[in-house]
Amino acid sequence: MSVATIGLSGGRDAELCARAQAVIPGGMWGHQRAAAVPEGYPQFFAGGAGACVRDVDGREYIDFMCSWGPMILGHAHPEVEAAVRTQLDAGDCLDGPTEHVVTLAERLVQTIPHADWALFQKNGSDAMTSCVTIARAGTGRRKVLVARNAYHGAVPWCSPSVVGVTAEDRAHILHFEYNDIESLDAAVAVAGDDLAAIVVSAFRHDLGVTQELPDAGFAAAARAHCDRSGAALVVDDVRAGFRLNLGGSWEDVGVRPDLAGYSKAIANGHPLAAVTGNARFREAAEAVFVTGSFWYAGAPMAAAVVVNDILHRLDGPARLRAAGTRFADGLIESAMRRGFDVSLSGPPALPLMQFADDPDASLGEAFCREALTRGVYLHHKHNMFLSLAHTDAVIDAAVEAVDDAFAALARKRSASA
Amino acid sequence: MSVATIGLSGGRDAELCARAQAVIPGGMWGHQRAAAVPEGYPQFFAGGAGACVRDVDGREYIDFMCSWGPMILGHAHPEVEAAVRTQLDAGDCLDGPTEHVVTLAERLVQTIPHADWALFQKNGSDAMTSCVTIARAGTGRRKVLVARNAYHGAVPWCSPSVVGVTAEDRAHILHFEYNDIESLDAAVAVAGDDLAAIVVSAFRHDLGVTQELPDAGFAAAARAHCDRSGAALVVDDVRAGFRLNLGGSWEDVGVRPDLAGYSKAIANGHPLAAVTGNARFREAAEAVFVTGSFWYAGAPMAAAVVVNDILHRLDGPARLRAAGTRFADGLIESAMRRGFDVSLSGPPALPLMQFADDPDASLGEAFCREALTRGVYLHHKHNMFLSLAHTDAVIDAAVEAVDDAFAALARKRSASA
Repeated sequence: MSVATIGLSGGRDAELCARAQAVIPGGMWGHQRAAAVPEGYPQFFAGGAGACVRDVDGREYIDFMCSWGPMILGHAHPEVEAAVRTQLDAGDCLDGPTEHVVTLAERLVQTIPHADWALFQKNGSDAMTSCVTIARAGTGRRKVLVARNAYHGAVPWCSPSVVGVTAEDRAHILHFEYNDIESLDAAVAVAGDDLAAIVVSAFRHDLGVTQELPDAGFAAAARAHCDRSGAALVVDDVRAGFRLNLGGSWEDVGVRPDLAGYSKAIANGHPLAAVTGNARFREAAEAVFVTGSFWYAGAPMAAAVVVNDILHRLDGPARLRAAGTRFADGLIESAMRRGFDVSLSGPPALPLMQFADDPDASLGEAFCREALTRGVYLHHKHNMFLSLAHTDAVIDAAVEAVDDAFAALARKRSASA
Repeated sequence: MSVATIGLSGGRDAELCARAQAVIPGGMWGHQRAAAVPEGYPQFFAGGAGACVRDVDGREYIDFMCSWGPMILGHAHPEVEAAVRTQLDAGDCLDGPTEHVVTLAERLVQTIPHADWALFQKNGSDAMTSCVTIARAGTGRRKVLVARNAYHGAVPWCSPSVVGVTAEDRAHILHFEYNDIESLDAAVAVAGDDLAAIVVSAFRHDLGVTQELPDAGFAAAARAHCDRSGAALVVDDVRAGFRLNLGGSWEDVGVRPDLAGYSKAIANGHPLAAVTGNARFREAAEAVFVTGSFWYAGAPMAAAVVVNDILHRLDGPARLRAAGTRFADGLIESAMRRGFDVSLSGPPALPLMQFADDPDASLGEAFCREALTRGVYLHHKHNMFLSLAHTDAVIDAAVEAVDDAFAALARKRSASA
């Protein structure tokens, strides 16, 4: 461990990391490995409340990852947790679903203009795999177009890693470039009369790459291809869903999908995913067999109903946009004052901050470490997330700490110059 | 609805079913569709406590499905729920895992002789897909052998339905017959030097078919094939895990797998799955990328630690075997007294009851409906599940009600003869 990281991850964290090394491959796996965040970030957390998260060494951070998306109202939200407790007290995972599955499906159908029906799962990967299966069942075709490098889950057909994956797992996957109509046209031509679905992320949020909102013309072209061919237009709203538009993220570009996948923020951290679909794909959704042992449990669905109520009541997307804009303005102003050139990309509610001339994000990483020691948890390569717990006061406190982090980074730059 | 089912599913259930028809394809999906249980069974449940489950019309049943497996200690178990509440109160789904992931991995490694490490997921399908991905990563090979008609999940490579599935999803899946060494030898020969894994259920529990325990010779043959070829022997302990042997179900036949998948009972209804593996596959487990938004949440892992403690403290498998045996004895004795020929198959803790000369299970279905009206929730085609809440008194009460159901069935048979 380099000198710079001493004082970051603490004693309890180090102890747990050592124990984890013995019994968990690589000490941790998947997207929450500390190896994937800046050096010195804690691996283990103890809890969270509102906009703050607390590590196992008792240090609190203003949390701009929101559990990598799920916390849209803030950690341990009292109203959500009360609904969860009520169902847990009654008994939760039962021989069949609770009434919450109906209420929640009705709520999504009322909220999301394209949605005629809904099904529920546990993982974003479940939702996206179900979308593909339903699209294939409904069209009797096989080819699925996805944007190159887009993240749609961590299962063989779409995982960002091909380790342990066979070529056949992706035999019918074709690629286009996000927002590039020509490349989409070309992929559609290759698929020919075997086109089952065009799968598109709500916006371009590939790891470590400047984010892009969907171009309205591109979205319309994708819709037109599906209208022409009968293929399913599938929006992957797993990451962005409910933060940008309660009717589905592509309402902002005036395009409605046939199928959409949701997860992350749907139940404020309780495990749930959803597929919504239009009438055209209802019969296909009836025909496929998708299920899981815990998919019918009531508590996460009860949570999701409360989350949906609150987001409507408070106009969640507008507040998140305002909070994200305040945060972005503060970051940019502070960076300029301290002599750094940073830019933010993507929607304000899910921003990515990048330094100019920092292709490997090493400056971004150093900055995030400075911010962490000042009580702000950021990410240098993955988009961050705002929540409704990120009030003006919270954001101003974070920006103040971040300003100090920029200043420290500037001092280090001078010292090494 | 036929006359016989009037008085079964009630007013609130019917109302919810009608609403569900509008917003959920087919009114419900997957294994908890009421269409898959005897006619008149309720679709919607309100809660459960101990060995009892309660539908939305307030009717209580002694529950022999245990939520289709998860409830191994009984519904709403106080000690488990207390651990869950503690983590939920602190904040649960965070920017990284809690310490429970380490404690739980340590506990599984201590408990399960083959296990050198553990990883956690949400669905049984996640665990089994991870096993296959790790086996392929570790061997650099592709072929995966599974028993014909075995259930390993509801994702394209293994779903019992091929609707929406492509041939390529199963391009490298080969079949053998459970407990049939010759068919296993033949499949191994077909796989040749491309054999990545042999995947075997803890016991044969195919839907609607007489259950079979694994033959020790067959298990040894599977182990020998893997030893010879370097392929991974994978035991699917998703359904049976923790009910038969806390060291893994194949401890009973003296064979240790390289990888095993667990889910269902691991956390007494809280959503969790696990893969355990030996040292040989640790590097492969490090190399693959498998993850999910909610996989690191602490509460289900805290629950699993408590479940593991309790199962050890009370010798869960021995108690479940005793409870299942008492139930089976009662069923058979009652059936004989009422003039029916029934047999039970599989381990007593996960029994399947079948009537003689009832190939379509219609007699079984009629019996289950009689039992339901008498407050006992059974299944006619899928194995049932015992829990530690199924005390002698509970089982005796169930057997008494079931005896009345057999008597009613006998009267109907006489009336129609």
